[in-house]
Amino acid sequence: MTQVKACLFDIFGTVVDWRSSVSREISFFFETKSITGVDTVEFTVEWRKLYQPSMEEVRSGRRAWAILDELHRESLVKLIGRYGIKGFSEKEIGEMNRAWHRLDPWPDVIEGLTRLKKRLIIAPCSNGNIALMVNIAKRAGLPWDCILGAETARAYKPMPEAYLASCRQLGLPASQVMMVAAHNGDLKAAKAQGLATAFVPRPAEHGPGQTTDLAADPACADIAAVSFVDLAARLGC
Amino acid sequence: MTQVKACLFDIFGTVVDWRSSVSREISFFFETKSITGVDTVEFTVEWRKLYQPSMEEVRSGRRAWAILDELHRESLVKLIGRYGIKGFSEKEIGEMNRAWHRLDPWPDVIEGLTRLKKRLIIAPCSNGNIALMVNIAKRAGLPWDCILGAETARAYKPMPEAYLASCRQLGLPASQVMMVAAHNGDLKAAKAQGLATAFVPRPAEHGPGQTTDLAADPACADIAAVSFVDLAARLGC
Repeated sequence: MTQVKACLFDIFGTVVDWRSSVSREISFFFETKSITGVDTVEFTVEWRKLYQPSMEEVRSGRRAWAILDELHRESLVKLIGRYGIKGFSEKEIGEMNRAWHRLDPWPDVIEGLTRLKKRLIIAPCSNGNIALMVNIAKRAGLPWDCILGAETARAYKPMPEAYLASCRQLGLPASQVMMVAAHNGDLKAAKAQGLATAFVPRPAEHGPGQTTDLAADPACADIAAVSFVDLAARLGC
Repeated sequence: MTQVKACLFDIFGTVVDWRSSVSREISFFFETKSITGVDTVEFTVEWRKLYQPSMEEVRSGRRAWAILDELHRESLVKLIGRYGIKGFSEKEIGEMNRAWHRLDPWPDVIEGLTRLKKRLIIAPCSNGNIALMVNIAKRAGLPWDCILGAETARAYKPMPEAYLASCRQLGLPASQVMMVAAHNGDLKAAKAQGLATAFVPRPAEHGPGQTTDLAADPACADIAAVSFVDLAARLGC
């Protein structure tokens, strides 16, 4: 692992707690419209369920490239219709969609990233677009060296190009780049392209009773860390 | 100017002193090979003279997209041939080419950027590629929020797309984005696309006796600042 020069990070679930943050934001918007009787955590989970199918349209080539802010918005419009919610203008829907720009990091993130950054290049490799990543980072104080991922690669994970473009854009061979995620599937796809991998568990990503990704799959993860601070220590930072 | 939410920066000349830094690096490489009798400042200036023609091949569509590291390397190979310099391996030419990754910032840069970053998004909008920008920033401590410019836009300044893609990737209208440069031509091109503009003079970029870009052209620059620290003050940061 001594040859690793850059760490790429999954964001949703790994760096930030999207479930708590988005549901908090949705609750705020619903309150302003006196919308009651909607479980905002359930609404958030349903919104997230439309995430993979929306990207799959792009991955499959059935639709032209579109950034995640656009896919998130289309999913939100669908969901509002399905719940029979009325009274939001186009502008307000856009503001609600920006809930994804205001996500809180897990408690170990800032300290871990700050330590890692001293010796390594750190960057997101997320399916989120550049503005989304920049706005999350500005609000939360995430000290990225640059923003990589779907928009710079023009490919959604787990497609090989999402990982390979990120390495190429850093001018590094895949073997000198480590993908960090709380999802074994993400690490499996990165490892298949020659990247080093580290798993950090986020057992509360999906709330109480989470059953997936509770531990590293040794076939996917070169390192199984307990936190970003632990990862920094394991990488000598 | 109160509506400005992001500042984009030209890098070569505006943020970093390429002439002194590259000539220092070249001197080091020449010493290791006991090459004497070459004026390394002149060599650096000649290298830089090949910069615009190499990008013009891409802008014109005569050649496919290529990042600046690649163009810099091709120019270096040409120049080594012209000077009749021998004894560098392919690997050593690659290392010499990375002289452009080790450029020193002007003295006011870090303080100015640090202040601007507190309230605004700050990013390069340079013709340099992502790895080049990241490596300069890591070494010099430039606190960018993200790296934008030629590689993310796949267009070299002063083409409109270089500026427009940067605004789009930040999710901001051009009117909320300010281009900062020590070159009136860069600002003229940015202003034509609707960006706000700020000039910061770098009268030593081309060494003693510089005759160009000594002052802001009022037709191109909304703000004429004396330094990055002054710019931060002018923008209320």
